[in-house]
Amino acid sequence: MERPILTLKNNEERRLRAGHLWVFSNEVDTKKTPLTGFTAGQEAVVAASRGRPVGVATVNPGSLISARIMDHDPATRLDVDFFRARLREALAMRQRLYATPHYRLLFSEGDHVPGLILDRYGDVVVGQLNTAGMDSRKDLILEALVAELAPSAVIWRNDSPSRDLEGLPRLVEVAHGTAPQHLEINEDGAHFAVPALGGQKTGWFYDMRENRTRLCRLVGGRTVLDLFAYAGAFSVRAALAGATAVTCLDSSDAACAMASDNAARNGVTDRVDVVRADAAAFLEACAAEGRTFDVVSLDPPALVKRKKDLEAGLKAYERLSRLAMDVLADDGLLLTCSCSQHVDAYELRRAALRAAAAQGRRGQILDQGRQGPDHPAHPAMVETEYLKSFLLRLVRE
Amino acid sequence: MERPILTLKNNEERRLRAGHLWVFSNEVDTKKTPLTGFTAGQEAVVAASRGRPVGVATVNPGSLISARIMDHDPATRLDVDFFRARLREALAMRQRLYATPHYRLLFSEGDHVPGLILDRYGDVVVGQLNTAGMDSRKDLILEALVAELAPSAVIWRNDSPSRDLEGLPRLVEVAHGTAPQHLEINEDGAHFAVPALGGQKTGWFYDMRENRTRLCRLVGGRTVLDLFAYAGAFSVRAALAGATAVTCLDSSDAACAMASDNAARNGVTDRVDVVRADAAAFLEACAAEGRTFDVVSLDPPALVKRKKDLEAGLKAYERLSRLAMDVLADDGLLLTCSCSQHVDAYELRRAALRAAAAQGRRGQILDQGRQGPDHPAHPAMVETEYLKSFLLRLVRE
Repeated sequence: MERPILTLKNNEERRLRAGHLWVFSNEVDTKKTPLTGFTAGQEAVVAASRGRPVGVATVNPGSLISARIMDHDPATRLDVDFFRARLREALAMRQRLYATPHYRLLFSEGDHVPGLILDRYGDVVVGQLNTAGMDSRKDLILEALVAELAPSAVIWRNDSPSRDLEGLPRLVEVAHGTAPQHLEINEDGAHFAVPALGGQKTGWFYDMRENRTRLCRLVGGRTVLDLFAYAGAFSVRAALAGATAVTCLDSSDAACAMASDNAARNGVTDRVDVVRADAAAFLEACAAEGRTFDVVSLDPPALVKRKKDLEAGLKAYERLSRLAMDVLADDGLLLTCSCSQHVDAYELRRAALRAAAAQGRRGQILDQGRQGPDHPAHPAMVETEYLKSFLLRLVRE
Repeated sequence: MERPILTLKNNEERRLRAGHLWVFSNEVDTKKTPLTGFTAGQEAVVAASRGRPVGVATVNPGSLISARIMDHDPATRLDVDFFRARLREALAMRQRLYATPHYRLLFSEGDHVPGLILDRYGDVVVGQLNTAGMDSRKDLILEALVAELAPSAVIWRNDSPSRDLEGLPRLVEVAHGTAPQHLEINEDGAHFAVPALGGQKTGWFYDMRENRTRLCRLVGGRTVLDLFAYAGAFSVRAALAGATAVTCLDSSDAACAMASDNAARNGVTDRVDVVRADAAAFLEACAAEGRTFDVVSLDPPALVKRKKDLEAGLKAYERLSRLAMDVLADDGLLLTCSCSQHVDAYELRRAALRAAAAQGRRGQILDQGRQGPDHPAHPAMVETEYLKSFLLRLVRE
C-alpha cells in the first residue's frame, strides 16, 4: 500500500535528522502537502523539502504537533510486528532492571513509540493512548500486547488532558480480560495496591521509585513528612526503612484512603500517620506550633503545565520550599521535586537555594535525581526529561 | 586577638551573600586593604565595601582566589573546635549513608571547609591540604581528626597540581601513626586494596561508587569493557554482579597490578581479564576485529582541566565515545562520564548524541549520574559539581 508523503519546508528536517521525533504544523510545506489531506492518525512518510524521506510518522492535522516520527527508516510499516518489536525491546531492558513485573513498560518518545504509555502491574497492563496515531491503532497495540505478554487484563486510562490537544475524547476502558479490583505493586519488597480504575493517571508513579529508594538510605531513626503523598509510596517505604514516625499528607480523601490501606498492608500503621490537609496550610500550622521533621519530601503535582506559567510556577515552588524549610529540623533533609518538563534542574535548584539562603541555613546537595530508568529519556528531546529532583541537607549556621 | 579585615570593592559581596565561598583577587579593594599586607593562609574577616562583615576567610595573597570563606558568621574562629564541629557534621551524614567507614569524609567547599579533602579507609585517613589556609592549619586539623576519629594513621597526599596555584610544595607525608602497606576499601561488599602511598590522588575514587552500583544492576549475563579502569573497582563489581566476562583496561602498569590484585581478592580472576593498553588503540583494534561488548564504561581522566581546553576536550570525548560505540554490541549500554568541572551535563550528552547519530543507533538515556553523596555539592557553587555521567542504551536502527 502506497503511503502519503508529508513534505517539510526547507531545512525543517534538520532537527529530525538529529533524532527529534516531532513535526510542528509550521514546519510542514502545506502548499505541497496540505494537512487537510490527512486523516487523524494516518501513517505517512515525512520527507525533506527536496523529497528525501526522513522517516515514517503518524499524522494529526488537528494538532500543533502535526506528525510524530515512529521510525527513521521510511520503509518501516506501523503494523503489529512494529509494535511487537518495540515491546520486546522495551521489555528486555525492564526485565534486567526489576525483579518483579512492576514498572513502566513503554514510555512514549523515550521508547521510540510517541504517544503510547504502558504501565505494568504484574499480569495487568494499564495504558494511555495520547495521540490520534496511537488511538487509531489501539487494536494493533492490543494484539501486540497479547502476543508478547499474555496479560490478564488491559485497561486504557484514556482520560488525560493531553488527549484534548489531539481532539480525542476522554474515557476509561477495559480493552481485554477483566479488570481486577486493585492494581498491585511490588516496589523493592514493599507491597502496594491502588483501585484499578480510580487512581491518578495509570494508578502508580513508578517514575519516583529510584528516588524513593535512595532517600530511604537516609531516614533510619528519623521523623519524616511526606507531602503530596498520594497512595503513600514513600511514607510506607520510609517506615519500612526505619523512620520512627512518618506523616503522610495529601489533600484528597481517595489518596488518604489508599495510603492508609497501604500502611496496613505493610504492617506500619503504628509509624505512619495519614493526614488529609492542604500542604501549605499544614506547613504553616506546624511552623506556628514549632513542630519539625528531620526529612521532608516535597513532590507537588506539575505546577508549570505550560511555558507561560513558568514564572508563577517557580514562585509557587519557592513558596512551598520555604514553608517546607520552616518545619525542617536542624541537619534536616529536603527532597524537592518537579515533574514539570518546563522547569529545568537549575531553576528548581535556584528556587530551593533562595529559600535556604533566606533562612540562614548552610546547604549541601547530596543527590540530584530524575525519572527512573523505566522512563528513558530521548537523547535528542529534552521534553522527555520531565522529572528533576534535588536532595538537600540543611544545617543552621 | 584582632583579625585583619579584607575589604571588597563595591557590590563584590553579592555573590558571597548568596552563599559562594571564593573571593577573586580583582574583587578586593587593594587600596584599602593591600593583599601584600596578608601572609599566606592568614585568617581574616571579609567585609563589604561599606564595612559590613561577610564572613571569616583564609587569605592567600599569591593565589588568584585571594580568600576562601570558611563561615558566613564573622565571629567564627578557625580553631580546633571549628574543625571538630565540621568533622562531626560531615561524619553524621556519612555514617547514615554507609555501613562501613569507607568514604570521602570531607569534601572541601561541599562540606564548607574550602581547601580540605579527607578520605576514610577504615582507621586510616588520607587527606589533601589544597590551599595555604589549610596547609598552615595542618596541626589543628590533625588534632581535630585525632579527637573525633582516633585514626590509626593520617597521610597527607599533598602532591596535587592544585597546590602549585597556592604556592605550596608537593609532598607526601605520614602525619600521624604508621602508614599501612595498603589502604583497604569495602564497597557494597566488594573488597579492594591499593598501595597506601602510591595510588592516584588519595588512593580511591569514591565519587563513582553510586554510579558503579547502579550500572551493576544491568550487567548480569553480559560482557563488559571497563576503560580507564584504574584499580578495577567497576570491573570487579561487575564480575561479582554476574557479568560473564570483563575486560579491565588501563594504560598504567601500576593500575593493572592493582586491578589484578583486586580481582584475585574477590575471587573473580576467571571473569576479569586485565589488559594494559591505550584505550583508543585498544578500541580501534577491537573494531578492526569485529569484537564487541554488551556494556562499556568510559570514565576517562579529566580531559578539560582549564576552560580554554573545552573545545579540544569535548572533541576528545566525542572521539572516545565514537570509538566506544564502534565496539558496542547491539542493545548495548554505554556509561559516559566526565570529571571535568568545566564540562556540563548538556555538553557531555551532546558529544555522546552526535557519536550515536553518526552510527545510526537509536538512543535512550536510562540514567544521569553525578558524584556520590559523600561528595556533596555546594548549592551556590556549580564548581563543586564536577562529575557528570550518562547511561545510554543504544539499539541499531
